[in-house]
Amino acid sequence: MDYIKTYIEQNKDRFFEELFGLIRIPSISSIKEHKPDMIKCAEYWRDMILQAGADKAEVMPTDGNPVVYGEKIIDPALPTVIVYAHYDVMPVDPIEKWNTKPFEPVIKDGKIWARGADDDKGQGFMHAKAFELMVKTGTLPCNVKFMIEGEEEIGSPSLSKWCSEHKELLKGDIILVSDTGMIAPEIPSITTGLRGLSYWEVEVTGPDHDLHSGLFGGAVANPVNVLCKMIADMQDENGKVTMPGFYDDVIEVSAEERAMLNKKPHSDEEYMKAIDVKALKGEAGFTTTERTGIRPSFDICGIWGGYTGEGAKTVLPSKAYAKVSARLVPNQDNHKISEMFKEYFESIAPDYVKVKVTPLHGGQGYVCPIDLPAYKAAEKAYEHVYGKTPVPVRSGGSIPIISAFEEILGIKSVLMGFGLESDAIHSPNENYPVENFLNGIKTIPVFYKYFAEMAK
Amino acid sequence: MDYIKTYIEQNKDRFFEELFGLIRIPSISSIKEHKPDMIKCAEYWRDMILQAGADKAEVMPTDGNPVVYGEKIIDPALPTVIVYAHYDVMPVDPIEKWNTKPFEPVIKDGKIWARGADDDKGQGFMHAKAFELMVKTGTLPCNVKFMIEGEEEIGSPSLSKWCSEHKELLKGDIILVSDTGMIAPEIPSITTGLRGLSYWEVEVTGPDHDLHSGLFGGAVANPVNVLCKMIADMQDENGKVTMPGFYDDVIEVSAEERAMLNKKPHSDEEYMKAIDVKALKGEAGFTTTERTGIRPSFDICGIWGGYTGEGAKTVLPSKAYAKVSARLVPNQDNHKISEMFKEYFESIAPDYVKVKVTPLHGGQGYVCPIDLPAYKAAEKAYEHVYGKTPVPVRSGGSIPIISAFEEILGIKSVLMGFGLESDAIHSPNENYPVENFLNGIKTIPVFYKYFAEMAK
Repeated sequence: MDYIKTYIEQNKDRFFEELFGLIRIPSISSIKEHKPDMIKCAEYWRDMILQAGADKAEVMPTDGNPVVYGEKIIDPALPTVIVYAHYDVMPVDPIEKWNTKPFEPVIKDGKIWARGADDDKGQGFMHAKAFELMVKTGTLPCNVKFMIEGEEEIGSPSLSKWCSEHKELLKGDIILVSDTGMIAPEIPSITTGLRGLSYWEVEVTGPDHDLHSGLFGGAVANPVNVLCKMIADMQDENGKVTMPGFYDDVIEVSAEERAMLNKKPHSDEEYMKAIDVKALKGEAGFTTTERTGIRPSFDICGIWGGYTGEGAKTVLPSKAYAKVSARLVPNQDNHKISEMFKEYFESIAPDYVKVKVTPLHGGQGYVCPIDLPAYKAAEKAYEHVYGKTPVPVRSGGSIPIISAFEEILGIKSVLMGFGLESDAIHSPNENYPVENFLNGIKTIPVFYKYFAEMAK
Repeated sequence: MDYIKTYIEQNKDRFFEELFGLIRIPSISSIKEHKPDMIKCAEYWRDMILQAGADKAEVMPTDGNPVVYGEKIIDPALPTVIVYAHYDVMPVDPIEKWNTKPFEPVIKDGKIWARGADDDKGQGFMHAKAFELMVKTGTLPCNVKFMIEGEEEIGSPSLSKWCSEHKELLKGDIILVSDTGMIAPEIPSITTGLRGLSYWEVEVTGPDHDLHSGLFGGAVANPVNVLCKMIADMQDENGKVTMPGFYDDVIEVSAEERAMLNKKPHSDEEYMKAIDVKALKGEAGFTTTERTGIRPSFDICGIWGGYTGEGAKTVLPSKAYAKVSARLVPNQDNHKISEMFKEYFESIAPDYVKVKVTPLHGGQGYVCPIDLPAYKAAEKAYEHVYGKTPVPVRSGGSIPIISAFEEILGIKSVLMGFGLESDAIHSPNENYPVENFLNGIKTIPVFYKYFAEMAK
């Protein structure tokens, strides 16, 4: 399949230029001011799909940011691959920690540096270019449909409804997604499990206005102290979540399966070194791989309240807030957990404060069986490019929409990720190795080839 | 003493205009950008003292914001009153909670609304006008020295040194201060005790960069969760501070004294209603008056970390911060407590995070004996204006410099406060009743009269 290498070699400079054009649009979905950028980004994607050779492509409205839909139907009798990606990105704060400007991509040290370089502009764009490659070289073996959304980073609030309304349009055999990672640069892997997510904002109100901490301190409950205590009480000394019912639907993974999972190359020493911590902390009785793969977690993503400026202001604040999240494992229902936490956290509020919990978003977990034909095709594609069989892994991350696709469209997804742990997605200095970007474009056409053969 | 009323009646409109000029200068000492305003404010005070009839007044440099010093020596044989006040104010955030602009004072519903209306521009300025009144009516019975600083709200870091360098200049018999409150509009009181203060910033570092909460959540300690737990553990279920040694130097107040203190008019019901809480929370075994008057407290003045913007960002943050404060009672040494907490909090840090504690400021507590001649003079002055004997009270607040004056200059202070609990000092919508402002100007000359007589 030398035509793949040749085409990439002859066109890669243009690929980068086109990707950079996409990255330069600051499409942060969680910040309202970027609404016009979402439209721009969708239009850019539409143009890229058309340019690559689609029959049609359009920006379709949803209740939120638009979805880009495009298709090339070469023969209705052939199998259809639906490519899913997202054009929105995470916020960039803390901005001062970036070494380059987040929306001005540069290639340095063999990597593309920018917000979205990996997640998911870089990874998503590989599919546009792999599609172009197949069309231009006359090797496209399947029908292709693109579904590129703009709200993944805020939990895809509009896509489920849009899918429900376009079931006919979205008929297909497999959903192909590159929005996950590989174990290591030399070890390809396919994500077979994703954690679900529940995410809330918590507001604790003490007095109805900020008080002088001297005149009132000691006599009036401080909502920051109370929130800290409530958060602390959510986990016991073994790192277990104390909320009754939280673990009810967690499937205990068998000893054999756990042994298999732990074969994934992993060193706690290296892991700690990479993030500069002296010790790890998690649920007692589980390894790091298990803690992120098969066990739910409970994290405060943000907290704020009172005086947070320079110097010292003595105040007993009126309010304290936290962004609270739980990663869930397959079979834990995010709607159930979302409601459970709201009820529980509000119910345990001491009578000297008011507590309000607002669910912000969530998603179900997902499992991909490793005997699925599309999984096998992906396996062979990686083998072809990397010379190694990819390792099936359970990721700690969540792509809430993946399980929704299965529910609504009845279509499984295969998660062919090319990201690395060092890509710093969602963090300052996000990056994506050029090699991984190009390997993605090499691997995808091979997947199409095997998938078309297997589906015959 | 009808001349007092007459003079005030004839001049009060000008008094307000002059006070408003002072308030309009946004002299927030904790924010560096306001440095030029500090100078402007000091110059304004200097001009006011000169205009009132001082022999001299000048803006004197310190290591921080300048001190305004002014004096009128009518006879070296007469006693000398030193007036202390501060021209700096607290920050104004949360700005959105203000009904008026904080630095555009207005009179409405019988109150002056502005940052500093009470604390301490309004209260401090009463002394400038009372001094003017005595000079212009030829009734000044003592020598007067003004010492107006610009760093009280950040713990007076430069004033102690300045006092040490100007001991000769600051010779006097009593320091007179209006920076405290009255029990109620109709019940005059004199503050005889102040709490001390220690204030720290705490930084908890987990991983060296923000992590994806899905990929790492459950396996890596989250510094926000850890900080919450550490803060929660600082107090037990009875509201007692758990840090070993914290109560060592607290003098247990006798049952008789506690009974006397609790005679201060107070209703928990009204207190709760005023701040809209359904229950109070404090150290078990003490009343509200005791909790703020004779017991130390532990409050988080601010907390922040992770994503605090709009919507949902799933992140396992690298850092979490808190502004931590303790109010101390007389005999608890703030330097000792400051160091004790730093050592303790850093020592209890789990090995999966790094904890750094930075002491930001502090001050000692203070007690004024009620048999002091100046106290008696103040008592008589209130009786003259209010027709009632003022109640001696222990305030929960801190004026760190008051105990420093005693240490450095050997001079006691009398705290003639005219503020009300409803003045919302340090909070949005700070205000000061016009009546209290004018009553202050009425009361101060009477104090001078009795103090001069008693000192004969």
